[in-house]
Amino acid sequence: MNITEKILARASGRQRVAPDDVIFANVDKVMVHDVSGPGVIKVFDKLKKQGINVDKLWDPTKVWVAEDHFVPSADKMSAENVVKLSNFTKNYGIEKHFKYGMGQYGICHTLSHEEALVLPGEVYVGGDSHTNTTGALGSFACGLGHTDVAYVLLNGKIWFKVPQTLYFKLNGKLPDHVMAKDFILKIIGDISTEGGAYKTMQFGGSGISEMSVESRLTMCNMTTEAGAKNGIVEPDQKVVDYLTSRGAKNITLVHGDADAEYEKIYEYEGSEMEPLVAKPFSPENITIVREAPSVELDKSYIGSCTGAKYEDLEAAAKILKGRTVKIRTEILPASISIYKRAMENGLLKIFLDAGVTVGPPTCGACCGAHMGVLAKDEICISTTNRNFPGRMGHVESQTYLSSPLVAAASAVTGKITDPRDLK
Amino acid sequence: MNITEKILARASGRQRVAPDDVIFANVDKVMVHDVSGPGVIKVFDKLKKQGINVDKLWDPTKVWVAEDHFVPSADKMSAENVVKLSNFTKNYGIEKHFKYGMGQYGICHTLSHEEALVLPGEVYVGGDSHTNTTGALGSFACGLGHTDVAYVLLNGKIWFKVPQTLYFKLNGKLPDHVMAKDFILKIIGDISTEGGAYKTMQFGGSGISEMSVESRLTMCNMTTEAGAKNGIVEPDQKVVDYLTSRGAKNITLVHGDADAEYEKIYEYEGSEMEPLVAKPFSPENITIVREAPSVELDKSYIGSCTGAKYEDLEAAAKILKGRTVKIRTEILPASISIYKRAMENGLLKIFLDAGVTVGPPTCGACCGAHMGVLAKDEICISTTNRNFPGRMGHVESQTYLSSPLVAAASAVTGKITDPRDLK
Repeated sequence: MNITEKILARASGRQRVAPDDVIFANVDKVMVHDVSGPGVIKVFDKLKKQGINVDKLWDPTKVWVAEDHFVPSADKMSAENVVKLSNFTKNYGIEKHFKYGMGQYGICHTLSHEEALVLPGEVYVGGDSHTNTTGALGSFACGLGHTDVAYVLLNGKIWFKVPQTLYFKLNGKLPDHVMAKDFILKIIGDISTEGGAYKTMQFGGSGISEMSVESRLTMCNMTTEAGAKNGIVEPDQKVVDYLTSRGAKNITLVHGDADAEYEKIYEYEGSEMEPLVAKPFSPENITIVREAPSVELDKSYIGSCTGAKYEDLEAAAKILKGRTVKIRTEILPASISIYKRAMENGLLKIFLDAGVTVGPPTCGACCGAHMGVLAKDEICISTTNRNFPGRMGHVESQTYLSSPLVAAASAVTGKITDPRDLK
Repeated sequence: MNITEKILARASGRQRVAPDDVIFANVDKVMVHDVSGPGVIKVFDKLKKQGINVDKLWDPTKVWVAEDHFVPSADKMSAENVVKLSNFTKNYGIEKHFKYGMGQYGICHTLSHEEALVLPGEVYVGGDSHTNTTGALGSFACGLGHTDVAYVLLNGKIWFKVPQTLYFKLNGKLPDHVMAKDFILKIIGDISTEGGAYKTMQFGGSGISEMSVESRLTMCNMTTEAGAKNGIVEPDQKVVDYLTSRGAKNITLVHGDADAEYEKIYEYEGSEMEPLVAKPFSPENITIVREAPSVELDKSYIGSCTGAKYEDLEAAAKILKGRTVKIRTEILPASISIYKRAMENGLLKIFLDAGVTVGPPTCGACCGAHMGVLAKDEICISTTNRNFPGRMGHVESQTYLSSPLVAAASAVTGKITDPRDLK
C-alpha cells in the first residue's frame, strides 16, 4: 500500500485497502472556519429539527476553529459569523479557537502546521477545499462540505472511496529562481485542472526531499486545483523537526510500503524547471514567465495559504530589498506568527521601505472577499491558488498565478517578470 | 479679529470680517478621498450635462487625494472607486494622490499634517466632516459636501458665513493619565453635540501651549462632534518645528489680535481633568472612567484620525508593554509613516506580543465600513470620534469613546478601565 492507503487502512480498522474501496474512516482532526463554521451550525440546526441529538460533539479536543476568511470582520454578516463561531466553541467546549485580535490566528491551512494541530499519519478533514495543504506533513488531509463536517463532528468518522494515486517524482533540486509554486503549476499544466479528480497526488523523489516543509505545503495546497482528493508527501526528519519545534509530541511516521502501487508515475527533472505563471482564467493555463504576455499589471499580491508562508515572504524580501514597487502591492502574512517573524527578522521593514502595504492575516483578497478586491479590468499577479473568473474581485478582472519571487519581481517592474531579469 | 476671522479676512480680500458676515474666500488647499472623490466626480458629470465646463481644475497643485475609507478595497464598489479616483487624478493632473500599496498613504486627516500638505493661515477644505482636524496647525479647516468641493475644484473659492468663536482655555498641563481626547470629550459633554453648531471652537491657554501638535489635532478633530464649523489653535514654534521637520517651507503664522473677540470663553483647570468615556450613543454622553458602567467589552479599537497618531500608539504601548489583551483588540496606525515609526521604535512588537492585531491604515472600523465591523450587541471601547447608533457596525452594537490610554487599559481587563487602576 502507498502512504494514503496505509493511513486510510489504519483509520478504517482494516489490514488492507485498495483504490476504489469504500471505507468508513475514523477522523483524527476536524477544522472549521468563519465561513464553513456557520454553515455547519446551520446543518446542526436542521438536524436538531429532525430530532437528531446535536448536544455533544464526538470529541471537542480534536476540533479546532480558525477565523480567517472575513476577518477583521469585513461587514455585519462577517461580524455575526464570528459571534456565532464563538458561541459554538463555547457551547461545545472547543478550546482551540484562533480568534483575531487575540494573539496567534491566521489562515486555517497555515495554523494546521504552524500550531502543530495535525500530525503525520492522521486523517484530517476541514470545512475548506484547500485542506489538502496539510498532506505535506504526511497526513491524509482533505476538504469536506458542511453536511459532511457536521457528520464528522457528531460521529468522529466519515466514508471515503480510497483514491487512486498519481505519483509525481522530482529528480534533483529546483534551481534557486524556481519555487515549489512553479513546480505545482507545471504539474497542473500537464494534467489539467481535472487531471487529479478524486485522486491522491503524491510527491516524492530527491527534489521533494530537498524541499522545505513549507514548499511541500505549497505543492499539496494546489492539488485542490487539479481536483485531487488529497495531496501527500511521505514525512521525513524535516517534518518531525518542523512539528517538534512547534510543540508536537508522539509523532509516528507512516510510510508507504516498498511495493506501493500508483496509478501513474510522472517524472520531472528539477534542473529543467522554469518560473511559470498561470494565465487567466485557469491554474492549468501556464506559460513560462519569460514568454508571458506583456500586460500592464495593476497589482501584485503576496498572500494566502499558498503564498504567504514565512519562506514565501523571505523570497519576496530577497527581491524587494532596496527596491521600490511600481504597482499597488500588498503582502499579507498567512498567520500572526509569520507576521511576527517577518517583523523580527527585518522583512517587514524591507516591505514597507519598498512601498508595500502589509496587512494582517486573512483569506480576504485571495477570494475577492475584502481587503484588496480587484476592480473591473484590473490585472493582478498573485501568489494565490486560483484564477477563475471573478476569484479576486470583478468577474472581468484578471489574475496571473505565480511564485512569490515572480510576484515580487513583477511588483518592481509592473510587468510579469522573471526574477533573473531584474536589474 | 481672532485667528479664524483674520484668516477669512485675508482669504476674502477684506480688511476686516466679523461674525455672521457672508464672504467669498479663496481656498488654499482641497482634499477628497475615496468616498467623497467619486461623489465629486458625479457632480462634475452632472455639471457637464448642464453645459458647464469641467475640463480643468482651478489649480491641481493645490489639490490632494487620499485613499483611506474603503482600502485595501473592501469590495467591488470600493475597488471601482479607487480606479475612478486614479482616472480623475490622471485626467486633471493632480500629482498628490496617496495610493494604498504604493508607499505613504493613510487617513486624509493624518496626511494633512504628516505630509505638511496644509500650512498655518491657509483655508483648507476637504470632502470629509473631520477636515476640522487640521485647524490644529493654525489654519482654517472645514469639511464640505460634494457639490461645494466640486465648486471649489473648479473655481478655487467658496462662500462662508464667518463663524462666532467659542474660546476654550485650558489652564495648566493635563495630568499624565489624561489625554487631549479626555479634554475634548469633557468640552463636548459641557456644550453638547449641538453646542458648537456653525461656530469656531478655538483652544488656548497654557495647557494647550504645553500640548503636542498631535494632541491639538485630537482637540480640533472632535470639534466636528460638537457641530463646529472649524476648530483652531493659534500656531506656535511647535507647529513650525513639526511642519518644518516634514519638509514645509515658507511658513507664515497668523495670530489673533490682542483685542480679539469671542462669543464665549470657557475655562478649565488641567489638574482637574479626569479620564472620561463617552457612553453610547453620543459623544456628549460622558462619564468619568472610574464611574463608568461595568460592562463586558467585546473589543478595543485603537485607530482612526482621532486616535491612531504616533503619540496615541505610544500611549497604548505604554499600557500594553508586557501585558496581554483579554478582548479582541485592533490597532490601525493612521498612516504608513506612523506604522513605520511604530515598527522602528518597537511599538509594533509590543502590540503583537500583547496579542493585538495590527492592520494597515484605513478609516474602516471607525465607520463600520470594513476591517473590524461590530456585530449585534457587541460592545467596543474605541479611540474614534463618534458613537452614534450603528456607527461602528450593527445598529444594536455599542461604542464607548475614550483616549488610547483608556482603550489600552480596557483591552487588558475587558472592562472600562482607568489606566491608573491597572495592576
